[in-house]
Amino acid sequence: MAQAKKITPRAQDYSEWYNDVIMQAELADHSPVRGCMVIRPHGYRIWELMQRALDDMFKATGHQNAYFPLFIPMSFLAKEAEHVEGFAKEVALVTHTRLMATGKAGAQALMPDPGSALEEPLVVRPTSETIIYAMFAKWIQSYRDLPLLMNQWCNIVRWELRTRLFLRTTEFLWQEGHTAHATEPEAEAEARQMLGVYRTFQEQWMAMPVITGRKTDSEKFAGAVRTYALEGLMQDNKALQAGTSHNLGQNFAKAFEVKYQTAAGGLDYVWNTSWGVTTRMIGGLVMTHSDDNGLVCPPKLAPVQVVIVPIWKSEEERGQVLGVGGRVKAELTQAGVRVELDARDSLKPGAKYFEWEAKGVPLRLEIGPRDVAAGQVMTARRGGSKAPLKLDGLTRTVATALDEIQAWLFNAARERREAHSIRGVTKQQFLEFMQGVGGFAYGGFCGSAACEAEIKQQTAATVRVLPDPEFRSPEAPSTCMWCGKPSVAEAVWAQAY
Amino acid sequence: MAQAKKITPRAQDYSEWYNDVIMQAELADHSPVRGCMVIRPHGYRIWELMQRALDDMFKATGHQNAYFPLFIPMSFLAKEAEHVEGFAKEVALVTHTRLMATGKAGAQALMPDPGSALEEPLVVRPTSETIIYAMFAKWIQSYRDLPLLMNQWCNIVRWELRTRLFLRTTEFLWQEGHTAHATEPEAEAEARQMLGVYRTFQEQWMAMPVITGRKTDSEKFAGAVRTYALEGLMQDNKALQAGTSHNLGQNFAKAFEVKYQTAAGGLDYVWNTSWGVTTRMIGGLVMTHSDDNGLVCPPKLAPVQVVIVPIWKSEEERGQVLGVGGRVKAELTQAGVRVELDARDSLKPGAKYFEWEAKGVPLRLEIGPRDVAAGQVMTARRGGSKAPLKLDGLTRTVATALDEIQAWLFNAARERREAHSIRGVTKQQFLEFMQGVGGFAYGGFCGSAACEAEIKQQTAATVRVLPDPEFRSPEAPSTCMWCGKPSVAEAVWAQAY
Repeated sequence: MAQAKKITPRAQDYSEWYNDVIMQAELADHSPVRGCMVIRPHGYRIWELMQRALDDMFKATGHQNAYFPLFIPMSFLAKEAEHVEGFAKEVALVTHTRLMATGKAGAQALMPDPGSALEEPLVVRPTSETIIYAMFAKWIQSYRDLPLLMNQWCNIVRWELRTRLFLRTTEFLWQEGHTAHATEPEAEAEARQMLGVYRTFQEQWMAMPVITGRKTDSEKFAGAVRTYALEGLMQDNKALQAGTSHNLGQNFAKAFEVKYQTAAGGLDYVWNTSWGVTTRMIGGLVMTHSDDNGLVCPPKLAPVQVVIVPIWKSEEERGQVLGVGGRVKAELTQAGVRVELDARDSLKPGAKYFEWEAKGVPLRLEIGPRDVAAGQVMTARRGGSKAPLKLDGLTRTVATALDEIQAWLFNAARERREAHSIRGVTKQQFLEFMQGVGGFAYGGFCGSAACEAEIKQQTAATVRVLPDPEFRSPEAPSTCMWCGKPSVAEAVWAQAY
Repeated sequence: MAQAKKITPRAQDYSEWYNDVIMQAELADHSPVRGCMVIRPHGYRIWELMQRALDDMFKATGHQNAYFPLFIPMSFLAKEAEHVEGFAKEVALVTHTRLMATGKAGAQALMPDPGSALEEPLVVRPTSETIIYAMFAKWIQSYRDLPLLMNQWCNIVRWELRTRLFLRTTEFLWQEGHTAHATEPEAEAEARQMLGVYRTFQEQWMAMPVITGRKTDSEKFAGAVRTYALEGLMQDNKALQAGTSHNLGQNFAKAFEVKYQTAAGGLDYVWNTSWGVTTRMIGGLVMTHSDDNGLVCPPKLAPVQVVIVPIWKSEEERGQVLGVGGRVKAELTQAGVRVELDARDSLKPGAKYFEWEAKGVPLRLEIGPRDVAAGQVMTARRGGSKAPLKLDGLTRTVATALDEIQAWLFNAARERREAHSIRGVTKQQFLEFMQGVGGFAYGGFCGSAACEAEIKQQTAATVRVLPDPEFRSPEAPSTCMWCGKPSVAEAVWAQAY
C-alpha cells in the first residue's frame, strides 16, 4: 500500500534507519494517540509466531494461561512500597465513566461528566503483580495448591515520555508469568528456569544472542528481591534488555496476605516469581539482523519464509511460470512452509524483489521460462547468495536453506557482538570504549550504587547484568574497574535502549 | 483448590445455578475491581480453543490480524453522531498520568497528580471503529488497496452498571473484524459471510443452535446501516445475543475521510463492515448445555476431553491400573485428544467423578483391576450412559464417542429450543407465552418502533432478529401480531440477556 521509499542507511542515521525499516516492512505505524503504535499485520504476524513458540514452552513447563483485569484499584499499587515508587510516575488513571456534551448546539464538544467521577481512581495495569496476588490470596489455601503457575498475555500501559516504535511505547503487548511456591529455593529455580526459556527462544527463534545475568539493585524490578535479565547487543552497539525474570521473595505475599497451610500444619507466606517479555522483542529482532535494504527476519519467525517471483515476457511464458510457481507453492505449503506466490501483473520482478526484501523474506525463488525448461528455480537468500535449485526435492532443499539462514543469522549476530565486546577493562579503556563505538564492556565492579551512578552520569553506560557463569571472563577481575576497590562481581556495562 | 460445594439446582434459582456452575468449574471468579472478572485457567482454555477455531476461519477467509491502541482520543468518538450517542454513557476515561502521595507521613494515600491532567481525555476503547478507520484513511489510497480485511483480538471496556460473569462485564475479551470495500454489495457480502462464519462456529464447535437475521433499527449497532446477529436460546428460555456483524455503509468512511481512487480515476468513500464475538460466548456455552451437576462442555471446546480415573485398593492394584492408565493417556495424547490421568492419592474415585463432572469433562474412563483383567475400560459419558470399551482400538472408539457427544449436545439443544418456540402468534398468545415460561415467539411485525417499545414495556421482550429465510415460518404472517396493521417482516421476540 505504501509508496516504496528509500531506506536511510544505518551509517547515515541509525535511528532514521530503524524507523524506515519498520515503516517499509509495514510492521507498525504511528497512531493518533500519543506514544501508542499500531501493529500492522506483517508485524503482528511476527508477534503471533513469537507467542505460539513461547506459549508452547510455557505450557511444556506446566504453566496455564489466565486473564486478570486491566484495571487495578489505586490503593493496591500502594501496598508494596518499592512497587508504587517505581510505577507512580507513569500510570494512566481512569477517573470518570461517562461523557457529556458541552458548549452550544452546533459547536458541541465532549467532556467527562463530573457526576461520573469514581470514588477510587483505577490504574491501567503497568504490570499485574498487585491484582494477581490479590487473587492468589483467595485461591491458595494449602501446600496442595502449590506451586501455582500462571501466565497471561495482555496489553500494558506505562506513560512514557519518549517513545519509539516497539522499543518503548505507552501501550505494549506482553506476557507476564506469575507463580507462587512453598519455598524460596523453588521460587529461585522457577525464576532461573524461565530465564532459560527466554534464552532458548531468543537464541533459537529470534537468532538473537543474549547474555544473561542478574541486575544490580539500582536496575532491578520495583518490588523484586532479585531480577534476572537477558541483554542483546544491537547494531549500533547499544544494549537492549530483551526480557526479565524476577524472584519476588515474599514481598508481595506479605503485602497481599498470600498465605498457605504448610504440610506440617503451620501457616506461611508463599514465595512468588514474575517474568515477562514484550513486543519490544520485535524491535530487537529488527535491530539485530536488518540491513540497509530493510528487514531481515529469521526464518522461524518470518511471516513469509519463501516468496516465489515468476518472470515472464509473453502470455505463453506467463502461463508456464505461473503453473510451475503454483505447484511449488502448493508443495511448500503442504510441507508447512509459509510461502507467497507474487503473481501481480502491475509490478516488474525487480520491484517485487525490492518489496519482499524490505519485508524481510529470507528466501526468494525466481522462476523464468529458462528455469522451467531446466527443471529448476533460481534461489536468492536475503542478503546472501544466488544459486539454482532443482525442482526435484525442492521442499527438502528449501527446508535446509531456511535452517542454514537461521543458523547463519545467529552466528553473524554473535560474531558481531563478540567483536564489540571488551573484557577486563581498565577505567581508561572503558572511557575510550564508551566514547568510541561502544558495546559490552566487561570489568570488575565494587558493587556500590555510587560507582554505578557516576559511571552512568559520565558515560551513559549502565550495568546491564552481573553475568551468569558461562558469560563471565576466564579470569575473575579483582578490582572495580572504576574505583579500584575490591571487585565483588564481574559486570557488563553498555549504553542501552 | 476450591472446596467442593453443592450446585444450586436450576429449578430452584437459575441465576444462582449459573454462578455456581462457573465457580465450581473454576471458569472465572469475581475480582476486587467493580464489574471486572478474572478468567481462570479452565475458562481461559475454552477461550483459547474458541480463538484458535475462529482465527483459522478468519484467516481462511482472507483476514489478517493487527493491533490498534487501547486508547481513543475523546474527540474521535464524537465524529460519528450515532456512535457517540450509543457509547457516551458507558466509557472509562483516562484523565491523568501520574500518582502523587497525599496526607501525613505514616498515613499516606495516593491521588492523581493534578499536574498530570491530560489536555484531551482518552477513552478506553468500547469498540475500535473510530481509531481503526482513522488508520484506514492513512493506508488506503487506491482501489488496489481494497478490500482491506483486518481483525484484532483484544480487551474492551464498557462501563456496565449490572454485571454478570461472562455475560456482561465491564471489561471483556473479544475479536473485532474491520473491513473496507470498494462497493456496497461487497461490504454487504462480507457482513453476511462473517455472520455465516460465526454460525458455523457456534453450531459446530459450541454445539449451540442459533437463529440468524437482521436487527431492527432500535436494536442495531450505534453507527451501522444494518446489524446482523446470532441468537441462542438459553435453558431459562431467555435469548442470548451471541455475535453481531455490521454493514457500516459509508458512515465511518465519511466521518474519518477514508477515500480511495477508483479504477476509473475518481475518488470515493470506502464501504465498511465490522463484526465481533466475545467471552460472552462462554456464558452461552455454559447456559446451553450445563446441568445441576455442573458444566457440560462440548468436546471440541473442552479443556479436558477425557479424564482417566484409576480405581485401586491395594498397592499392587495401584501399580496395575496406573500402568494401563498411563498407556491409555499416552495413546490418546498421541492421537490429539486432551486427556488427564487423575492419579491423586488424596481423593476417592467418587470424589474425582464429582469434580470432573463439575468441570464439564465429556468422557470419563474408569480403570479398575477387573477392567485391566478384561482388557477394557468403563466409559461414562457426561450426563449420559456407562459402557465398557475394549482397550484394543480405544483411540478410535473414544474419538467416535466424542463426536457422538458433540452431535448429541447440539441436537438436544436444538430440540429444546424448538420446544420453546411458538410460531404465528396472536397478541393474546404472545402475552401468555411471555408471561409463561417464554422462549422464541415468531409473529408478524409492522416495523414500527412504537410497537417495539410498547411490547418491551409490557412483556420485557424485544425483537431478537428479523430472521433469515431459512428460519422463517412456512407461511409469511400478513399482519403485525401486536397492532394488527400489515406486517412488513416476520420477527422473533424473546426476553433476553
